[in-house]
Amino acid sequence: MAVRLPRGFRAGATRAGIKPSGRPDLALLVSGLPAAWAYAATQNRAAAPSIHRGRALYASGKPLRAVVVNAGNANCATGERGYEDDRRMAELAALRLGLSPEEVLTASTGVIGVPLPVEKIARGLPEIGLTPFAEAFAEAILTTDTRPKVAEAEVAGARIVGLAKGSGMIHPNMATMLAFLVTDALVPQEALRAGWRRVVERTFNQVTVDGDTSTNDLALLMANGAYGEVPLKAFFEGVEAVAQELARMIARDGEGATKLMVVRVVGAATEEEARRAARAIAGSALWKSALYGNDPNWGRILAALGNSGARFDPLRVRIVLQGIPLYEGGVLPFDREEAGRAMRAEEVEVLVDLREGQGAGEAYGCDLTEDYVRINALYTT
Amino acid sequence: MAVRLPRGFRAGATRAGIKPSGRPDLALLVSGLPAAWAYAATQNRAAAPSIHRGRALYASGKPLRAVVVNAGNANCATGERGYEDDRRMAELAALRLGLSPEEVLTASTGVIGVPLPVEKIARGLPEIGLTPFAEAFAEAILTTDTRPKVAEAEVAGARIVGLAKGSGMIHPNMATMLAFLVTDALVPQEALRAGWRRVVERTFNQVTVDGDTSTNDLALLMANGAYGEVPLKAFFEGVEAVAQELARMIARDGEGATKLMVVRVVGAATEEEARRAARAIAGSALWKSALYGNDPNWGRILAALGNSGARFDPLRVRIVLQGIPLYEGGVLPFDREEAGRAMRAEEVEVLVDLREGQGAGEAYGCDLTEDYVRINALYTT
Repeated sequence: MAVRLPRGFRAGATRAGIKPSGRPDLALLVSGLPAAWAYAATQNRAAAPSIHRGRALYASGKPLRAVVVNAGNANCATGERGYEDDRRMAELAALRLGLSPEEVLTASTGVIGVPLPVEKIARGLPEIGLTPFAEAFAEAILTTDTRPKVAEAEVAGARIVGLAKGSGMIHPNMATMLAFLVTDALVPQEALRAGWRRVVERTFNQVTVDGDTSTNDLALLMANGAYGEVPLKAFFEGVEAVAQELARMIARDGEGATKLMVVRVVGAATEEEARRAARAIAGSALWKSALYGNDPNWGRILAALGNSGARFDPLRVRIVLQGIPLYEGGVLPFDREEAGRAMRAEEVEVLVDLREGQGAGEAYGCDLTEDYVRINALYTT
Repeated sequence: MAVRLPRGFRAGATRAGIKPSGRPDLALLVSGLPAAWAYAATQNRAAAPSIHRGRALYASGKPLRAVVVNAGNANCATGERGYEDDRRMAELAALRLGLSPEEVLTASTGVIGVPLPVEKIARGLPEIGLTPFAEAFAEAILTTDTRPKVAEAEVAGARIVGLAKGSGMIHPNMATMLAFLVTDALVPQEALRAGWRRVVERTFNQVTVDGDTSTNDLALLMANGAYGEVPLKAFFEGVEAVAQELARMIARDGEGATKLMVVRVVGAATEEEARRAARAIAGSALWKSALYGNDPNWGRILAALGNSGARFDPLRVRIVLQGIPLYEGGVLPFDREEAGRAMRAEEVEVLVDLREGQGAGEAYGCDLTEDYVRINALYTT
């Protein structure tokens, strides 16, 4: 596909031998200019050292120049040593790039509880060739994802490129959602941070694969200003479009998934309640199982909605599946076979109107399949 | 097993034809004396009419005489008609028993969104023979449960008998957790209600099968006083023992489950945080999958803990699986094969010490299996 990064950015990767498969597993993303940045990280209390380090850098407010990512090892639950190894990874990357360690963000994804092989990272970093293209980086950050995730947009001449990896597992533990968006637009850091929070809330935080939030999740937006100023409103629309595309790719590529589920909730009392309701439906194990079986089991949607905390009256709410109305304050007559056929799609849409107010929101999920269980249970037996 | 109900209670059931299988599906539980009662119901906003009716009766504070339960139809999301049908079920049961409808609690479990066949209930009720034994009732309230759930205790001469059905699904929708405890102890209604809240918090509310809370869940405690007074502290210990045994039976018999998971959290800052942490572990799809595969993936336990909201320091927390320490603020050396073998049990215990305070709590779950997905996805295809 050869997606070119925004001007001033370069990226590359190598096989450092961290992944047992021998695939690329160490990646760099670099900006020629100091970049304003915005960052969102997992709220998991067992967060990895890279997350703690990232939060401290973020609090300093200083510009960012590079990100170093390893896949195959989350460097999480590795004790005090994990913090040292993470710092060492930043130092080594800084050395390779001629930067100070405080200009380099670290990210790790892969197995929990295994010490990070820093010597492999030390040997691998000098081997990374940097190019203006996204692909090598996008591939090296994957764990059990089945495909790289790249999306792009252009806003008034400036470019936005997003690279992500999804929720998948790697023996013997969970992987992570990582997202990196880079742009050559010039955006003041404060505006960047406020805008990013809102985008993340509406996109990456609305993805659910199995309800297990990783210890290493992060979403980053770097703006190096190489292109110049752009209208802010349009800029964030572009950022959100890229983030949303990546969010959908992550959900579609969830462990064992055969299809993408997009849940759209309208008519909620607030936007936050709409998002919460959408997440509850996208995350319901029962509805995810029904989706897999092409069974238009709307009772499960209603039950999930009832557990979401969003306000609604079951005697008024409306549920539409793939354009087919199933429920409207009571049972609607519908053709079960037709609805089942409509569910045999790559992407299935659930639309819910709560009829309480103006709040709207989306969530992105996938079906729950026997392969999910197999992938996460049976490889050791 | 022939478990005799406490004095003054009688129960019975019949085949009313609500379950497509033709198995018993309509049940009565009756007290000869007006009983004090305590009640806990689902918080699901799409709760069934029986739950709304139960809450209103509960608020009235009047004594209870009987419960009528149907299985095979949840009478949920059935519109205004559902409320009328539920009221009618109470009236018909009251007529059969010579009571007023306000003395009869209703409960329904089974398919969502299908009108309740009240005429079948009308025909079935007169056929129910009442006996002093628990079994017929316990069997008739099941849906896809694989076995009836009965537990009992004796406290200073008074008896407590509990009857429950578990979380399972019935085509095309979810079933419900229902629990009915009856005792001949004499307990003032206010004490009964306060004590029951606490017991339910520690037992039934700590059961998770798939994270989907039903629209019809309820847990009831009826005390008719036929035996007389007993020491209250011992009484509630007995009630809790019965409730805990039923909670474990429900988790063990979760859809597709091959084993029971008991999670015990100690050293939490508060008891509530301990319970929350235990629930998060018992509910983690990743850890449930690992449990199925006999994979001692403690990283998943730590990650679930980190998402629970309970306070802890990952550099201090301790995780023990089936008596084998796996993690203590860092990786512990342990024999993976031995740990895997220890997981091949009917009941697997996870013990977590958060090392924050004195709070302790348990949760009850099961493994996530391919059968769960099959049962809930594939029967329509």
